[in-house]
Amino acid sequence: MTSETPRRRSGGREARIAHRAAAHVETVPFLTRTMAPFEVLGEEGLSLLEENAEILLQEVGIEFRNDPAALVTWRAAGASVDGERVRFPKGMLRSIVQASAPRVWKQHARNAERDVMIGDPYTVLAPNYGSPFVHDLERGRRYGTLHDFQNFVKLTWQSPYLHHSGGTICEPVDVPVNKRHLDMVYAHLRFSDKPFMGSVTHPDRARDSVELAKIAFGTDDLTDKPVMLSLVNANSPLVWDAAMIGAARVYAENGQGVLVTPFILAGAMAPVTIAAAATQTLAEALAGMAFVQLTRPGAPVVFGSFASSLSMQSGAPTFGTPEPSLLLYVMAHLARRLGVPFRSGGHLTASKLPDAQAAYESATTFQATLMAGTNFVLHSAGWLEGGLAIGYEKFILDEDQCGMASTFVKGVDLSENGQAMDALLTNGPGNHFMGHPHTLRNFETAFYRASTANNDSYEQWLEQGSLDAAQRATPVWKKRLAEYEGPPIDPGVDEALLDYIARRKGSFPDSDV
Amino acid sequence: MTSETPRRRSGGREARIAHRAAAHVETVPFLTRTMAPFEVLGEEGLSLLEENAEILLQEVGIEFRNDPAALVTWRAAGASVDGERVRFPKGMLRSIVQASAPRVWKQHARNAERDVMIGDPYTVLAPNYGSPFVHDLERGRRYGTLHDFQNFVKLTWQSPYLHHSGGTICEPVDVPVNKRHLDMVYAHLRFSDKPFMGSVTHPDRARDSVELAKIAFGTDDLTDKPVMLSLVNANSPLVWDAAMIGAARVYAENGQGVLVTPFILAGAMAPVTIAAAATQTLAEALAGMAFVQLTRPGAPVVFGSFASSLSMQSGAPTFGTPEPSLLLYVMAHLARRLGVPFRSGGHLTASKLPDAQAAYESATTFQATLMAGTNFVLHSAGWLEGGLAIGYEKFILDEDQCGMASTFVKGVDLSENGQAMDALLTNGPGNHFMGHPHTLRNFETAFYRASTANNDSYEQWLEQGSLDAAQRATPVWKKRLAEYEGPPIDPGVDEALLDYIARRKGSFPDSDV
Repeated sequence: MTSETPRRRSGGREARIAHRAAAHVETVPFLTRTMAPFEVLGEEGLSLLEENAEILLQEVGIEFRNDPAALVTWRAAGASVDGERVRFPKGMLRSIVQASAPRVWKQHARNAERDVMIGDPYTVLAPNYGSPFVHDLERGRRYGTLHDFQNFVKLTWQSPYLHHSGGTICEPVDVPVNKRHLDMVYAHLRFSDKPFMGSVTHPDRARDSVELAKIAFGTDDLTDKPVMLSLVNANSPLVWDAAMIGAARVYAENGQGVLVTPFILAGAMAPVTIAAAATQTLAEALAGMAFVQLTRPGAPVVFGSFASSLSMQSGAPTFGTPEPSLLLYVMAHLARRLGVPFRSGGHLTASKLPDAQAAYESATTFQATLMAGTNFVLHSAGWLEGGLAIGYEKFILDEDQCGMASTFVKGVDLSENGQAMDALLTNGPGNHFMGHPHTLRNFETAFYRASTANNDSYEQWLEQGSLDAAQRATPVWKKRLAEYEGPPIDPGVDEALLDYIARRKGSFPDSDV
Repeated sequence: MTSETPRRRSGGREARIAHRAAAHVETVPFLTRTMAPFEVLGEEGLSLLEENAEILLQEVGIEFRNDPAALVTWRAAGASVDGERVRFPKGMLRSIVQASAPRVWKQHARNAERDVMIGDPYTVLAPNYGSPFVHDLERGRRYGTLHDFQNFVKLTWQSPYLHHSGGTICEPVDVPVNKRHLDMVYAHLRFSDKPFMGSVTHPDRARDSVELAKIAFGTDDLTDKPVMLSLVNANSPLVWDAAMIGAARVYAENGQGVLVTPFILAGAMAPVTIAAAATQTLAEALAGMAFVQLTRPGAPVVFGSFASSLSMQSGAPTFGTPEPSLLLYVMAHLARRLGVPFRSGGHLTASKLPDAQAAYESATTFQATLMAGTNFVLHSAGWLEGGLAIGYEKFILDEDQCGMASTFVKGVDLSENGQAMDALLTNGPGNHFMGHPHTLRNFETAFYRASTANNDSYEQWLEQGSLDAAQRATPVWKKRLAEYEGPPIDPGVDEALLDYIARRKGSFPDSDV
């Protein structure tokens, strides 16, 4: 047996591609990591940051603005309240969080097969969040619409590698600000059956999200069944405002998950150093998570960190650089020590295009996200331009990387077939393995097959039009949307959802705040 | 103090950019990592692979082809020799390597300030190696020439982030195969003063490399002064051929570093599984490194692993996928257990262009390279098309990522300034940090400044021509080459090098093998 070409199935290239595509769509509801996270600080450094956060909480404290009820909650819990400023005795917030916040919890999906586990050793990937603009290669950059929003819900639902439908995947700018949450929640419930996120821009919108979820899940009480995980951001530095605290309260009262994320551009919302940004993030997140636990002990939380460095040129956030990666590793470790699930990272970039900059920055961020052992990942697919835009092609390219993560986290197969000693001992020096029975038995499933990479010869690639990765991604998302067939929904439930939305939309005037 | 824009120095954008560029060029001769590597297997799995490699070496063994002297060496060392097949009692090769191979060693450069340490906890970054083709955006893909080779030596010398001049950065196809090594070694010695690699395509060419190095370093004996690290590849599976073994012998006899690298496309040169590819790589590398140690105990070696998966479509190697990353982590760990420096990874891609595919694959590979704790990294800059081409723009983009690594490996600054408790305790809730004295004191040096990323606003970026990352890299390499002023060289030494080369070139006819 010497150098051989691999055996080919009959039916030519098309048949092979179809066969591969079929083999490809193995849906994993979430990732289960098999290796210990990468760590950049030891016990001494981590303790120092924890102690610094306690000093900051005790001496400076946090402002809870325009929410008198929150101040009542804090006073009752033993904090010192001075106006809207709340100061915390050392260790108080950590004790509150550790007393009742679950280490791991299940977020239920409309389809139970798509339930996800939030916490170690699991990783749940969700798409982009919050972009006002949408980008594709043909139409360029433009404001997002409800149609775009629905498209991304559909693309996410179709993806075997995104486990969660996300929340505000893009802003549907064509719908009034005070009503678009209804259309967004409806889209997640109607066009997907993966778990999703509720609205946080006003407590009333959080309540609407809960009511719609009750209809969809056919229950009057969701308190013991988390079906949403919703994102509240601190108003860094050291401020929690009424909208976010109000939304967090609604979700906590209803037993729904709250993702507590300080949003830090180091140099603006925090000092420019990694250690200080970590200290502040920990302090702000502890306050948010403890507030949730005081509101309803045991309510599911996630410790979030969104942190980036600033460009000196433009003051804009930068991504894929070393400092945000280091900070991500530190925060993930601090969350593990605290004992709560952690969210950060994604495929982040400042680039305006799905070009090399976008991919270097995104891949570097995503590798740190994975290696750090992040449990919930927003912005796993689509993010462009520092979050100002979501790209259709970027979504397709990122999603392929998410697929690779599903293989990576499984680690190395050490079974007898994985060791392949039969092949190694029988093949002999100088003989290729292409025709070996072990190879033939394993070749179809041996390697992750990137759907967006071109591995053809240069000449083949020239013949096919010399397309770059982004150009090749355009027909992929178009084809997928054209082929979309959604998950089933009970017509009565659908009608009830639409009724609720129509009633609510008619009950107050449009507004753009 | 509320939201402020960052202070700007007078002199406008140009002056700021010049200032930054000046601050930027801080040359670090090599990276010193401060964190433990990421590991994907535990003791049990690693022992299993080590045991499997010993079984493979004992039962199947390795062929040493067309080099009778190697068989004499092996017989004398206690191996069983049958024809050209050499079988090794369990543990023999490991004992030989561990008895004399240095864990860490210094490769001397022509300029002592550029000496590098090879081994833990250091990482040395070297450019692309071995590509017959060259790519740039304006001229497209073409065969490499000596002019291109010299250009890449110059670009590497100018880079603050590449520590090593490398070897066959591209093939100078316009020079006869049997003479081009003379021009390549000369270029490394003349246009750079960083450490470099010698020729390995024939033992005579290795000897020429040693002779030229003796002239450049002004000595008749380099045996105690490693000034080259040269790459020998096994002819996998389980074969070492005469050219590589012969070159390794010449370098070992002269005390020069040998980088022993099985080159594995899993599914072709090894079974398709990670565990089996690791087993075979370990076996082949042990044989190569032990041969070097038998030739000259204490001669510096590096355990190399180049491993990739195969595309089912084209049979071409694929990069940036999960299996090569897992294998890289495993091999790095096996090398640490053996106690020798490790080489793998780089910015690898199958893409034909410096596009998003290239960057995802490169960044993913490079992150694994770094996180695994790799000690010597070939292909850190420029690699395209599975190594068939080196790209000018790709080189510039990759190099920026190498710069980020220099910041990342330093880890988190926990000094008083790093903790920034003064800033955190004095700034107060809701106040931006942009004008804080701590920020102003640290802003210039706080963050790695990517030279190839565009972080401007969408509108600024439009005004500047909507260029993608690759397009922006074209003027960078052109400007740098235009501004190149090489390191000094003694005119007498230069003359002696050129004399040697002229004499050798005249002493045998041109040949293309």
